Amino acid sequence: MTDAALAERDGGTAWRRIADELAEAIARGEYHPGDTLPASVALAERYGVHRHTVRQAFRHLADQGLVTVARGRGTQVTAPRVPYPIGRRVSMRANFGKLGIVGTSRVLSAAMEEGAAEACVALGLKTGTPLWRVEGLSLGDGVPMGTGVHWLSVERFPDFDRAFREAGASMTAAFRAYGIEDYVRLSTRLTARLADEREAELLQIAPEAAVMVSTAVDALPDLTPIHLVSSVFAGERMEMVIEPFRD
Amino acid sequence: MTDAALAERDGGTAWRRIADELAEAIARGEYHPGDTLPASVALAERYGVHRHTVRQAFRHLADQGLVTVARGRGTQVTAPRVPYPIGRRVSMRANFGKLGIVGTSRVLSAAMEEGAAEACVALGLKTGTPLWRVEGLSLGDGVPMGTGVHWLSVERFPDFDRAFREAGASMTAAFRAYGIEDYVRLSTRLTARLADEREAELLQIAPEAAVMVSTAVDALPDLTPIHLVSSVFAGERMEMVIEPFRD
Repeated sequence: MTDAALAERDGGTAWRRIADELAEAIARGEYHPGDTLPASVALAERYGVHRHTVRQAFRHLADQGLVTVARGRGTQVTAPRVPYPIGRRVSMRANFGKLGIVGTSRVLSAAMEEGAAEACVALGLKTGTPLWRVEGLSLGDGVPMGTGVHWLSVERFPDFDRAFREAGASMTAAFRAYGIEDYVRLSTRLTARLADEREAELLQIAPEAAVMVSTAVDALPDLTPIHLVSSVFAGERMEMVIEPFRD
Repeated sequence: MTDAALAERDGGTAWRRIADELAEAIARGEYHPGDTLPASVALAERYGVHRHTVRQAFRHLADQGLVTVARGRGTQVTAPRVPYPIGRRVSMRANFGKLGIVGTSRVLSAAMEEGAAEACVALGLKTGTPLWRVEGLSLGDGVPMGTGVHWLSVERFPDFDRAFREAGASMTAAFRAYGIEDYVRLSTRLTARLADEREAELLQIAPEAAVMVSTAVDALPDLTPIHLVSSVFAGERMEMVIEPFRD
């Protein structure tokens, strides 16, 4: 019997009632972010339902971003996902600021390399053009949100490793050091996959948790591409928001 | 020792050479979509490196969408991810058509319910307003791509269960039956999490594979919301593309 079939046996809406009551308890502050909810077995007994029905309630809460269900760690109350608008202008630091979140970043590595075909095409350069490959980690209120690898032309951005560090790993601030006061988000490609070991370590998420993978190109206001960034964001902490009529 | 440290021991770029050679072999057609690459142990022996170095190469290929690494199933060559533009107009069927992919959909369930607060707020309705809750599955060339739950006003869309079935579970076609020839995508929220059992079954992906979760609102051209849809897409098969300057 599948989970769905077992849950069905308890009545199609039993899970919903349980989910609603748990959501209310969270809203009342009975459970705080980081708290673990009672185990599905205990709740199943309390409500007189199959534990799969409780799990369905947990999943519903997880879908709403209220809890995180991790194997072996139980069901934890999460802080709400931070919305990150992907519009014509994208700046994590500015976005965090608007939300009252303190955004900080760290440079993890910086090196020059011969640009691979993919990166050079995205930047409108010939394959093999020297590129900066700069790796950063972004935090919101001290919690890791995303980590990304940035590629930029060495010719266009001499000493970028130093500039990026001096800018506190803020791309907006680093661009300003090169006289670029404004830039736009040309394209963003988003998908989902499991975190690898290093990403999980950097983002402080469970090994094999889901991450959002973003490949984005920023450009000058005249739409000349200047910056390619390939990032992973903790799925449990961030959500991308696309509202084309707001731009 | 961490994976990264072990790989480092083989030289920082050993994994890249292996990844490049495998990518070329895939490009040459030596491996086809669905084929399993040699195991990391075998490749480690062939290249004289630690198996973690090979795994790093696999992960790089996975990030590029060339392979899928699943525990216990090895590393499989994937079809490239289908790009799905999230612009001012979003239609999966129309998008598939442009890519030469045959899009089909199936209605999984249809029911009326008192609208929960979240859904009603998104649709600009009072909490408790009767809503259709319609569940669909979308396939591209017969492969499941996404499954979603749609909410619409019962008053605005009488007999929607029938209309949606008659429209072959195409929202665009169903809207047309109500005289709506055009609609726009007001907002899309995207995040990532692990698939639950039912989703994995519907999408034919590994249990606990990563899915992209989308919560989207469609509106009439005058921006009156008419449709809320909460979907999950197979992360290994789809990528969302946001290009605000193309709209």
